Parts: sequence; structure tokens; C-alpha cells
Amino acid sequence: MMLLYEGKAKKVFKTEDPEVLRIEYKDEVTAGNGAKHDFMEGKGRLNNLISSDIFKYLKKNGVASHFIERTSETEQKVKAVHIIPLEVAVRNVAAGSIVERLGFKNGEEFTPPLVELYYKKDELNDPILTDDHVLRLDIATEDEIRALKEAALKVNAALIKMMNMMGLKLIDFKIEFGRDKKGNILLADEISPDTCRIRDLETGENFDKDVYRNATGSLIDTYTKFYEKMEAVK
Amino acid sequence: MMLLYEGKAKKVFKTEDPEVLRIEYKDEVTAGNGAKHDFMEGKGRLNNLISSDIFKYLKKNGVASHFIERTSETEQKVKAVHIIPLEVAVRNVAAGSIVERLGFKNGEEFTPPLVELYYKKDELNDPILTDDHVLRLDIATEDEIRALKEAALKVNAALIKMMNMMGLKLIDFKIEFGRDKKGNILLADEISPDTCRIRDLETGENFDKDVYRNATGSLIDTYTKFYEKMEAVK
Repeated sequence: MMLLYEGKAKKVFKTEDPEVLRIEYKDEVTAGNGAKHDFMEGKGRLNNLISSDIFKYLKKNGVASHFIERTSETEQKVKAVHIIPLEVAVRNVAAGSIVERLGFKNGEEFTPPLVELYYKKDELNDPILTDDHVLRLDIATEDEIRALKEAALKVNAALIKMMNMMGLKLIDFKIEFGRDKKGNILLADEISPDTCRIRDLETGENFDKDVYRNATGSLIDTYTKFYEKMEAVK
Repeated sequence: MMLLYEGKAKKVFKTEDPEVLRIEYKDEVTAGNGAKHDFMEGKGRLNNLISSDIFKYLKKNGVASHFIERTSETEQKVKAVHIIPLEVAVRNVAAGSIVERLGFKNGEEFTPPLVELYYKKDELNDPILTDDHVLRLDIATEDEIRALKEAALKVNAALIKMMNMMGLKLIDFKIEFGRDKKGNILLADEISPDTCRIRDLETGENFDKDVYRNATGSLIDTYTKFYEKMEAVK
């Protein structure tokens, strides 16, 4: 089947059905917009298992996504969508770029959660956008921006509930959305510890890609533990 | 009289009246957040003359500011306000940071004009903020944000009118606002070719601090020409 797109962590293939794509999760991990890059056996499988189960869980919680079904340990079938070039970030607690960029105190709680839009554009280093920029760049309409933000907050509420049961705290995450043929907006891409910042509620220990970014532990061990915790509360 | 504050281009003094301050415009010019810095005889006078006359012109056009009166060639009296730590930028045409940061095409027209809010914080390099950031940082309320943006567009419309008569095109500018004792929001700081990007309508020649930033001409000559054009259309 034809390779449609190869990203840092996934390959996307066409299928016989023009409305269905196959995603293969790669055994690769990158950080810092590709500055750090490693092969890591088993990572594709873990991200695929975790992301599939999160999409299933979100569906039960009323959030529509592109996910159709997991077809192997490293692959899933999804609805074909045109990705909207935005990373929608939801922050429950100040960490990372918002601390460095805007001077928020690390650990400061955002009540209600803060939603931000970043322009998915590697060559510009994914800059933050105001709603007005999104309109001027013809990325989305005002109604769509509102829908994206509402959906992101719904995803946040559902993920917080799940992670709390797992003994984890969801600090922040980034998601992407796509439009199907009819223009419906669907959650897309993946949700996994690659795209979230997650801490142990008691020890504060990282359960996310920061263990790789900051070289503080084994990413495979961390993601395996995350997956086991998730399976335990299902 | 007591020096209250010394900035890159101005000194602010207390007066006998606690509700009035005296601003002295300095013969100094900086660019790139202080990276480039020069003494320049006559610059303080020009900025004071221009800024005073712009505030007077804006008052006639229904925009309230802190300006009371010009008291000498290099000084003006203003109402004492607490500066809101925002730079409110209005863009009629894409130029500068928005081209580099977001990939807009240089020269692209913004219709309607685009308003952006930047956090006045040298140590953070004046980062752009979303409205939501402004709220979370307790910089301004939702109503105040709306008021700032409306006032900025009103200033823009008036300045465009004036500059068109001068044969000039207003590309973009940044302004600051302050709150008086009663919490009223007033336009503050200064408006001059230091704070605007201005081009000749026909030749495209710069009439702003870019001549200093890019070392393409004499800043004093340029500002003198600007002031003469402004006086000619008064």
C-alpha cells in the first residue's frame, strides 16, 4: 500500500478504501524538533497500544476521533482526514515552554485549564498563535476554533479522570485535529506519553517523553508501566 | 524633582502635583532590546515635538491620552498613570517579526488591521500573548482587553488619515496604555517614528527607526522630515 506520509514517529499508508488510512507506529523517538533522535525497539508497539486504547476510552466519553481499530501490535486503521495544521495544547499546570516564555511559575495551576494554539510548521518552530492569527492564516474559521478548544477541554476532562485512577497527574498535552470529507472535525494523530506531560501523583516521577528529553530514565520501561497502569483501570 | 523612572529614551519625573508627571525625552536611541545603543543630539527634541503633536491630534480625533502639554523642546507634562505592561501592536501590512515568526508574506495587507498584545518584559524579550495569557497573568480584565484593542484601532484609523495626508503609509505601530487613579484607561508612553513602521507612499522609503536599526540613513534627518511633513498638514 502506498506510503502517504512519513513523520518522526509514524508512517501513514493509503488503503483500498479512500476514506481509510493505515498508520504504522515506528520504533523511533525524537525530541527538540528532531535535534535528538534515537531508534528504540518496542516504542512503536507501546505508542500504538496506548494511543488505540486512549481513543477507545475517549469515544466512550463522547469524543469522536479518526480511530477505527487497532489492526496489529504496531498498526491502526483510521479515518482519512486532512490534518488542521494546529497543535492544540491544554495546560492544567505550568511547565516547560510557558514557564520559560512567559514567566509563569513552574507548578502553578491553571483553573480553568489554559488552551493554546500552535502553528504546526517545523521550519517556523511551531510558533504560538492568537485566534486572530489562525483566522488570518486561513487555518480555521471562528466556529472551528471554538469547536477545537471545546473538544480539547473535553479530552482534558476525560484524560484527567483516567489518569487520576492510574495515580497520575496530567500536567499538559498537545493534540491535533483533522477534517473529514464532509468537513467534520475529528480528533486525530495520537495521544500517548509522547504528546502529554504526566507525573506520578505521589512521587512526582515523570510518566512521559521527558524521561527521554532529559535522559532521566528508560522510555520503554516508563511507557510499559504507563500502559500497565492504564490496563489495570480499564 | 524626583526621578521616578529612566527608560531607554525617556526620563520620568514627579512634580509637585501627584497626578502629574514630567517626561524628558533623551538624546539616545536603542534597537534590538538595547543591543544597539547610541547618543544622538537632537533626537529627544524631535521625539518630544512629534509625540506631543500626535497626542494633540489624537485628542481632536476622540482618543484620550495621558498628554497634558509640552513644556519645553524636550519635555512634556502628562497625567500620572500606572502603565499596563502590554505593548499593543496594530498591523496594517505584514512586516518584521510577524513575517519571520509566522511566515506571513512581507507586504501582505491585513484587512481589517491585526491587533496583537505583547508582554512588556525585557527579561522575557517581550513575548506575544493570547488574550487568555493576559487574563491568567492578571495584566488586564476581559473588558479592558476589549477596550485596549478598540482604542488601538481608533488610534490606527486616525494615524492612517494623518499619514496619508503626509504622503506616508502606516505599516504598523506599538502603543502602551496606563490606568489613572480612578482606573480609567489612557493612551500613554509616546507615539513617534520610534514606535511606528512608516513608509513613503510612492518611493517606499523608510520614515521610522528602521533607518537606524538597518543603518540605511540619518535618523535625525528622517525624523526632521517626518516632523516637517506633519506640520505641513496640520
